Amino acid sequence: MASKQVTLKEVGEKAGISAMAVSMALRNHPRIAEKTRRRVQALAARLGYVRNPAFARIGSIRGARPREMMPMALVRHANPTSVFYHPSYMNSLAREAARFGYRLQFFRSEEEAGNGRRLGEILYHRGIEAVVLGPIFHQAFIDTFPFQQFSVVACEAGHFQPPCHLVMSDILLSMEQAVRLCLERGYRRIALAEHEEPMVPVDALHRQAGRLAARHVAEQSGAAWAEGMFPTTRTDAFHAWLGDFRPDVVIGQTAFFYWELKRKWKVPREVAFVTLRLGRDHAEPELSGFMENHMRTGALAIKLLDGEVRDFERGTPEVVSRILVEMDWKEGRTLPVRAKKRTVSGLKPVARAG
Amino acid sequence: MASKQVTLKEVGEKAGISAMAVSMALRNHPRIAEKTRRRVQALAARLGYVRNPAFARIGSIRGARPREMMPMALVRHANPTSVFYHPSYMNSLAREAARFGYRLQFFRSEEEAGNGRRLGEILYHRGIEAVVLGPIFHQAFIDTFPFQQFSVVACEAGHFQPPCHLVMSDILLSMEQAVRLCLERGYRRIALAEHEEPMVPVDALHRQAGRLAARHVAEQSGAAWAEGMFPTTRTDAFHAWLGDFRPDVVIGQTAFFYWELKRKWKVPREVAFVTLRLGRDHAEPELSGFMENHMRTGALAIKLLDGEVRDFERGTPEVVSRILVEMDWKEGRTLPVRAKKRTVSGLKPVARAG
Repeated sequence: MASKQVTLKEVGEKAGISAMAVSMALRNHPRIAEKTRRRVQALAARLGYVRNPAFARIGSIRGARPREMMPMALVRHANPTSVFYHPSYMNSLAREAARFGYRLQFFRSEEEAGNGRRLGEILYHRGIEAVVLGPIFHQAFIDTFPFQQFSVVACEAGHFQPPCHLVMSDILLSMEQAVRLCLERGYRRIALAEHEEPMVPVDALHRQAGRLAARHVAEQSGAAWAEGMFPTTRTDAFHAWLGDFRPDVVIGQTAFFYWELKRKWKVPREVAFVTLRLGRDHAEPELSGFMENHMRTGALAIKLLDGEVRDFERGTPEVVSRILVEMDWKEGRTLPVRAKKRTVSGLKPVARAG
Repeated sequence: MASKQVTLKEVGEKAGISAMAVSMALRNHPRIAEKTRRRVQALAARLGYVRNPAFARIGSIRGARPREMMPMALVRHANPTSVFYHPSYMNSLAREAARFGYRLQFFRSEEEAGNGRRLGEILYHRGIEAVVLGPIFHQAFIDTFPFQQFSVVACEAGHFQPPCHLVMSDILLSMEQAVRLCLERGYRRIALAEHEEPMVPVDALHRQAGRLAARHVAEQSGAAWAEGMFPTTRTDAFHAWLGDFRPDVVIGQTAFFYWELKRKWKVPREVAFVTLRLGRDHAEPELSGFMENHMRTGALAIKLLDGEVRDFERGTPEVVSRILVEMDWKEGRTLPVRAKKRTVSGLKPVARAG
């Protein structure tokens, strides 16, 4: 990662245009052709050019030294199989941070050991003031981490709400849209399957509201609706429930239900499937559903965090906000449009395979 | 509004400490007493001191001229009675913008005239690139405003979603919390009254989800529930509905229902009242309810917008996010804790006054 400030001139040299033209392109000046603007903007982003109002105004001072980058920490829990450890995620967020003038460094929260204070000391001694926090699954971490010394923005919903702004996926919107999509494609018996969770997640209200909104949409359109919560260990309960209700489509909170479904049913011939939380890490090509865009969530957290740093905000904001990021729809093969005949005939029971 | 950069030295002179101590206080350095830190931070904010990573790094260059402030526009619709025209709102947001290095200027959208293009030209010729947009009530404005030339963040929910990030009140959370509060205080017959709206508002899904979540909470606890939508012109329908259901508390979408209620009932003796959208502009001391904090919403929009500007983001983001800001609970006199006897006796019918 270059820690030197990339200049307009350097961008211009690579782009084959003048520094002034680069400046105009970055401002979307109408005198620069649309195509050129896009090209220069993409190039500038790739090179890590950081434009900022303060710097722009003093950029004309001769002899200004290249600006050092400030360090920023990404703190995440210790599970190395999580998306936070994927090189593509780490690289993508490091690039985002660099665009704002930060050098991103990665840390483990060791939250299960309740080591918030120790982590705080490490960050402090490295001169880090800006922290992006991953999802929190242990209250002890929140109790021990010295929030007052840092600017902190969190991303992704864990089990505990940290005392800072939190960027997370818009699960309510996805749940409602999933049902709308099922209806549009001719499904008339919709089942929503969720995991029984031992802890209340941070987005519990949005999930609950999403469940109610989804059900409301289904019932308004005259579709049959069932919802169930299952422990991941009791897959027999899931299958008994499916056998009773005989849905034509299952909306599953995670891809787990898809793997289970496939054990006894032919998907999508006998029953269709939509997942609501398709992580990029297990994005099977065939699966249809809403995909979490962790990079987008993280990038927004970095942008917000930069605002906190510039605002010299430390510690916990008076009121924490939730930033809801739309999830991406991924078209796979598990939610085909139903044949017109079936749509019209309505509640044709789905044959059970198992 | 001072357009000169306030220096650490100036803050230090007012605070009676060295520039170095100010710098440390702003970073929450543990060597500076907690009390001093708070005092210096408050003073720095009041003086409009702008700290930013880029500037901080080059601040040591001798002879650097005081930085000019970038202009930022706040564009709002033409209704001069709206909160956007209150001097306290305007001053508060101008201060917020100044903290990030912007000089806030105020414009009317004239959106009812569909004049987005003309406004765009005015902003462009004034050298403005950063725009905070108020709620949009006319699609024509969105169709004609040249978003691609600006960095834009919107605040407050109108009838149309502008193609940018939108900061708005967390109405879903308030609706659910309103019911919880009613239950906690011993109410057992809860009525939710909303306005029938000719247009679908931008926060329609959250309002709908909020309604369903509120009802769910009420029914889970065994309380009686009714919900109704009324045109503001048909107050007789509202009163007939109240007479039929005989609630012990009304949750009203706006304070309008309170004024209506009071015409025929004694509040809170015969029926209690909670408003869900109490603007600061008509915050009657006696009213209990959730208050929109437009200044907080606007301040977050400015912070986000600063991120867009620094990121040289112009035009419409690929995916727009919703930033939900918690509303404040305002304790008035319209939702008193009910006497224990009434709580225990349960569904004691409320006498009708009119």
